[in-house]
Amino acid sequence: MSLSEFDLIEHYFKRTCTTENSGVAIGIGDDCAILDLPDGYQLAVSTDSLVCDVHFFADVDPYRLGYKALAVNLSDLAAMGATPKWVSLAITLPEMDELWLAEFSRGFFELANKFNVVLVGGDTTKGPLSITVSVKGIVPRGLALPRNNAQADELVCVSASLGEGALGLACKLNEHTVKNRQYFIDALELTEPRVELGILLRNLASSCIDISDGLTQDLRHILKSSNCSAKLELDKLPLSDLMREEIQTGSINEQSAYQYALTGGDDYELLFTISAANLAQLNKLIEKSEVTIPAISVIGFVTPLQQPLIQLFKQNEAVSFSLQGWDHFKGQI
Amino acid sequence: MSLSEFDLIEHYFKRTCTTENSGVAIGIGDDCAILDLPDGYQLAVSTDSLVCDVHFFADVDPYRLGYKALAVNLSDLAAMGATPKWVSLAITLPEMDELWLAEFSRGFFELANKFNVVLVGGDTTKGPLSITVSVKGIVPRGLALPRNNAQADELVCVSASLGEGALGLACKLNEHTVKNRQYFIDALELTEPRVELGILLRNLASSCIDISDGLTQDLRHILKSSNCSAKLELDKLPLSDLMREEIQTGSINEQSAYQYALTGGDDYELLFTISAANLAQLNKLIEKSEVTIPAISVIGFVTPLQQPLIQLFKQNEAVSFSLQGWDHFKGQI
Repeated sequence: MSLSEFDLIEHYFKRTCTTENSGVAIGIGDDCAILDLPDGYQLAVSTDSLVCDVHFFADVDPYRLGYKALAVNLSDLAAMGATPKWVSLAITLPEMDELWLAEFSRGFFELANKFNVVLVGGDTTKGPLSITVSVKGIVPRGLALPRNNAQADELVCVSASLGEGALGLACKLNEHTVKNRQYFIDALELTEPRVELGILLRNLASSCIDISDGLTQDLRHILKSSNCSAKLELDKLPLSDLMREEIQTGSINEQSAYQYALTGGDDYELLFTISAANLAQLNKLIEKSEVTIPAISVIGFVTPLQQPLIQLFKQNEAVSFSLQGWDHFKGQI
Repeated sequence: MSLSEFDLIEHYFKRTCTTENSGVAIGIGDDCAILDLPDGYQLAVSTDSLVCDVHFFADVDPYRLGYKALAVNLSDLAAMGATPKWVSLAITLPEMDELWLAEFSRGFFELANKFNVVLVGGDTTKGPLSITVSVKGIVPRGLALPRNNAQADELVCVSASLGEGALGLACKLNEHTVKNRQYFIDALELTEPRVELGILLRNLASSCIDISDGLTQDLRHILKSSNCSAKLELDKLPLSDLMREEIQTGSINEQSAYQYALTGGDDYELLFTISAANLAQLNKLIEKSEVTIPAISVIGFVTPLQQPLIQLFKQNEAVSFSLQGWDHFKGQI
């Protein structure tokens, strides 16, 4: 028996709200969802599409696709310091495939449940495989983290480590043979949105963005809109122990590792600017936090506007790198 | 010179907010939009995809596609009684086509400006042509129009006239040769979302839905969730003067016209249940309204739950019709 559009939503996506404070007055099954926003809060919304053969391969594990479709959107909320609340999902599918949908929804809800995000609506259509997720969060009025407020002399910081998603993609494309292949593919596909860190940054960071297109490209967005420049120290870019192991065993050379860290994209770490005093306070909050929040690395500092916008140093010597990230219509340049 | 993804957003979609009360604290160009919701209001959100070869033909006029992608979403807000405020847009395009984008955005913004809806974010990706719009509106807390509150003895009403969008589609498929071909195609492609009517219905209607899948299918959604049934009078289904002209000149037969009105879909009229007293009040409000609001037709009444869920009468005699609307995975059945 084939499922209809309505059955599909009923079977795979209509879940009872698990939290009392979900704010869902009317959920799935009406023309719109109706959502309660606490007084004194602002709404944060982000919409992202994942398209087959662009963002993922046709044979992608549907569990991982469901997970990642939500993860990249939650990462946008994290970059604003917003608390995730609700999500809408539009799926276009070439054909009804119940096994695929069961796995997709399992991955989607695993992450949704982790962050108490409620699915409040959606749309299913027949056509070339693509997924559009629109996520909504809330943030106390006036505390959202903008891009355009970086100040000279502040520190440039990044969470966790860089370049692993990009190496994971290179592994999938068989461009490298590495020892920890599955670890890097997991970094690409099971991205951890830095939601708790974003919330801690609300009162502390002056600007913030999530690294989806590559460190230098995303930093440029901050710098351009803040009318500043930045100096980065190559040796301070955080590489994970497993990435360093791949360098030491010769699986990849150091230059490739830094290229992935600078321009690879798909990191979904938070990149932010912050004063030294506020960074000390942030580190105390991270230490006290009940959930695990990744370590913060200082990778450089903000300067008054100058050209080039980003200067790279290695042990006090200027170095040059191709600094372009990913652009969907121009491709890698 | 080809445009990059960022240029594209900058060129075609980044508009200055035209209204002072737009509520946009941070708009396009950051990770999320940050939106002010007035205290005491609830958020209404709806997400709809339009996919090439399913919802439109590849050679569609991009102006009309941009218009309709927003219109169908605004229609969902209208069906909740919500005031439209903000919209996000995800476009997947096979290739950068500036003329296409200029026309698409012209159609999109024509309707957005009409209803003071501000584009607050979006995403552009390379891939098979599809459009996903996520629209957000506000409604005073507790006044959203649900589906599940129809009561026995209330009237079943519908705005304007039915079946024109479906006849427009039949014309495009060359299934009919009619006199007023362009009029019906316009009805299909330049849908008027009934936003002002929805707002008037807030305190008056007990349930409401917009007719996208066909009158009977959408009425069934109301009846099922309200645990009611309905009796409809075929002769009371509103057909426009031009539709009647096509019947009189023999371009289409009467049975086809009623079939389109009952099951055709693509009407985007509001279908609602209301008490007789409240309907009288609604008609007074419509008369006094400064904007033109279409006439309301009473097409039947709600009964206690019985089978079949919808009974059709023609001059007091029960008649039978195929009552199925459109379902995306099963097709027309």
